[in-house]
Amino acid sequence: MVVNLLPALLLADHLNKKGCSCSDAFDKLKTTSWVNMSSIPDLIKKKRDGETLSDDDVRAFVDAVTSELIQDAQTGAMLMAIWQKGMVVAETTALTREMMLSGEVMSWPKEWAGLMVDKHSTGGVGDKVSLVLAPALAACGCKVPMISGRGLAHTGGTLDKLESIPGFNIHQSTEQIHNILDSVGCCIVGQTKRLVPADRVLYSLRDATSTVDSLPLITGSIISKKGAESLAALVLDVKFGKAALYKDLESAKELAQSMVNVGNGLGIRTGAVLSRMDTVIGRCVGNSLEVIESLETLKGNGPDDLMELVTTLGGILLMMTAAAPDLSEGRKRVADAVASGAALLRFQAMMEAQGVAKETARSLCSAHTDYFTVLRKSEHQTELVTSADGVVTDIDGLVLAQVLHKLGAGRSKVGEPINHSVGAELLVSLGQKVQKGHPWLRLHYEAPPPTPDQMSGLQSAVTVMTNTHTPTHTLVHEVLLPN
Amino acid sequence: MVVNLLPALLLADHLNKKGCSCSDAFDKLKTTSWVNMSSIPDLIKKKRDGETLSDDDVRAFVDAVTSELIQDAQTGAMLMAIWQKGMVVAETTALTREMMLSGEVMSWPKEWAGLMVDKHSTGGVGDKVSLVLAPALAACGCKVPMISGRGLAHTGGTLDKLESIPGFNIHQSTEQIHNILDSVGCCIVGQTKRLVPADRVLYSLRDATSTVDSLPLITGSIISKKGAESLAALVLDVKFGKAALYKDLESAKELAQSMVNVGNGLGIRTGAVLSRMDTVIGRCVGNSLEVIESLETLKGNGPDDLMELVTTLGGILLMMTAAAPDLSEGRKRVADAVASGAALLRFQAMMEAQGVAKETARSLCSAHTDYFTVLRKSEHQTELVTSADGVVTDIDGLVLAQVLHKLGAGRSKVGEPINHSVGAELLVSLGQKVQKGHPWLRLHYEAPPPTPDQMSGLQSAVTVMTNTHTPTHTLVHEVLLPN
Repeated sequence: MVVNLLPALLLADHLNKKGCSCSDAFDKLKTTSWVNMSSIPDLIKKKRDGETLSDDDVRAFVDAVTSELIQDAQTGAMLMAIWQKGMVVAETTALTREMMLSGEVMSWPKEWAGLMVDKHSTGGVGDKVSLVLAPALAACGCKVPMISGRGLAHTGGTLDKLESIPGFNIHQSTEQIHNILDSVGCCIVGQTKRLVPADRVLYSLRDATSTVDSLPLITGSIISKKGAESLAALVLDVKFGKAALYKDLESAKELAQSMVNVGNGLGIRTGAVLSRMDTVIGRCVGNSLEVIESLETLKGNGPDDLMELVTTLGGILLMMTAAAPDLSEGRKRVADAVASGAALLRFQAMMEAQGVAKETARSLCSAHTDYFTVLRKSEHQTELVTSADGVVTDIDGLVLAQVLHKLGAGRSKVGEPINHSVGAELLVSLGQKVQKGHPWLRLHYEAPPPTPDQMSGLQSAVTVMTNTHTPTHTLVHEVLLPN
Repeated sequence: MVVNLLPALLLADHLNKKGCSCSDAFDKLKTTSWVNMSSIPDLIKKKRDGETLSDDDVRAFVDAVTSELIQDAQTGAMLMAIWQKGMVVAETTALTREMMLSGEVMSWPKEWAGLMVDKHSTGGVGDKVSLVLAPALAACGCKVPMISGRGLAHTGGTLDKLESIPGFNIHQSTEQIHNILDSVGCCIVGQTKRLVPADRVLYSLRDATSTVDSLPLITGSIISKKGAESLAALVLDVKFGKAALYKDLESAKELAQSMVNVGNGLGIRTGAVLSRMDTVIGRCVGNSLEVIESLETLKGNGPDDLMELVTTLGGILLMMTAAAPDLSEGRKRVADAVASGAALLRFQAMMEAQGVAKETARSLCSAHTDYFTVLRKSEHQTELVTSADGVVTDIDGLVLAQVLHKLGAGRSKVGEPINHSVGAELLVSLGQKVQKGHPWLRLHYEAPPPTPDQMSGLQSAVTVMTNTHTPTHTLVHEVLLPN
């Protein structure tokens, strides 16, 4: 009863502020016992002073955010207090749960209960894992209601990649998602407005208030959205390195552990992979080009590093849902689903279910296809060459992505259009011996052409050295599993 | 030039947010060089991380607050970051200066330049110092443009006290203030809207965001308002003890030192007194009763503790303006101004200048007057008696004030009406020997009468002990002067 009073009290306060009179209702409420109830300033004070917020405290704050009955200044102050003082696991779990419960929580048929799985990545360069993993897991019998995002700054977005396929519709209602999962087993869609409204408010204020890089706030934002998918198991790809959100392993591991703790705290079997993000995943960067590489991977021609991520992340999910007895067997099943072509068929079916014409989907999935009869090719391509003899020891993914972003492959602000055809293909691998003048990058661009500065920037991304050991290049550094 | 761009950029951003288009102007601005300009999120981040804001940074923040081109969430986050990380003296000085410059800064005739003085108190119980000090200083040749506040919670407000005098008008324009200072030498008025608008915004958000008790924010709020009075000298009465904002001496001293530093940094000779606030200043609490006690003091019948504060605070000001050679001589001149009746005449003239009828003012200032022919007397009075033989060792000012507040002498929220006639008179002094049953408090109340709980509360405020030393009772603990 105590808890249910808060919205009414806030409403009364809100109306008072707006000059409306509701003193009768307010007076009645005030006379009711609510001794345990903290006001918003009290909650802010508590967090400001480094105390631990109770479940009721967190609920009161998130309820006030969702119902927009809190002042923006108070939300800003609370975000900063959380940034400064952090949250213990129990608080972060409560925050995530209440954010999840602030909107629609999806429900599934009973018989799917143990099959619902999803993956989240903190974002990388050339990260097309979802496009391969979702259909591979569907082929292994899972249900994958993958809700993805768009790209921002140098990181690409899964939804943008898929939208380079003519007709692909990322907007699907809950009912449509249900139907696609029933017939195909996987879908990749955008977030609906009814999901996690509290996150929409907090997320939009975090950028303006310089409170983005806060462990509990990041955890809450990511896991609340996955929680609203009502999953049995969730795997997180937390990246570290030059081209990742977190440059150092330690910070990445902290975030991974926080999300694993909270995911499991919400009853979702949650594991995480800490993976290197220094160069490019696979060989292609850019929306159309990454779709092509994903399709090639589903046809069995995928690069080792991409397949390493796909099989590890998928294997963890199969193990956590008890579909596979251990990680090794889980990885094998995912690899088999790709090698057998079963995953490719699921991708084809998913495209059709999400609006792509039958003929287009079939053409993209056939063995010897010219992808550019369907996908838009950039007007111009040019090749960059190495400037020395030696071994390719580094390809800087961040530098590549930043230039491509400026050439139109990415967006600087939410809502900006992007050019799906802009991108680049790596023509060499790490550790490869090359001679001076060897082509190492094919750049796909349109007007305006890259400036001399941008060309130099791209060229600076490759490092060729003599007398050096061939670097090993496995991405997965560590796996965190639920206890 | 760099600085002047900010409001325009913010405006463009603001209009964008509101869905208005001003992209042409915005694009033009973006192409102008403003490399040194920090965005609001950058400023918040800087303070969040404990860095020192530059003068330009502080100006950009305060300008954005004043022009309302900052998001409330950002102001809330910045207030919390300041609360958490504090500010060095240079930052606090910049904050105070920019707040002062956000609105009208008063200007005075050249010949008054060295005479402009004022006092600020952090608030106490029975604190009627201003009512005696302002006319005493005017009688000493100073000009005192005293801008005061209203009471909130257990602390009384000088403006409320004066408004218990029929006809007293605290609303005076800058021009009227000028005229009153010319003819009388002192006035006690409310803040005009044109003064320190940045403080109005920040002050209103600090309560909601639990960022009230921050040294730089308190300093900025108090000193910016005094700075806008264009003073030559300022003295601060910073109280510590049971009934003060700061309970402990150390915190009070920190605030005093901060305000002294910043005041002098703005070019105002600023000193401070650290004074005890455990019991009641003088013998009366409540608006009408305190006016009576002030008039009695101006007639030479004031209690020692009140006169101690008046002469010390006034003496410091006379010394700082070089009107007196040292503190001792300064105190003597203030005491003489009271003893001679010169201060009383100034108070009478001030009342008339601020709207009180000539006859009323004269009646209040005459030697043998019945104050209640002019001031409203409460409908009921009752006396409380001691419950033991012994010595009065304590009278708890906070407990007294809290009960009187509930009986109508104070307000809980800005804008609430108060009952000027409610209050209490102490009938004993600290250290006085009493027998059981001796009257120690006369309570003035109206409907509804005090509850049994409130009566017990009042009774708990007095402590009578046997076999004890008589406590000494001087208020001034320490004086801080400019270097």
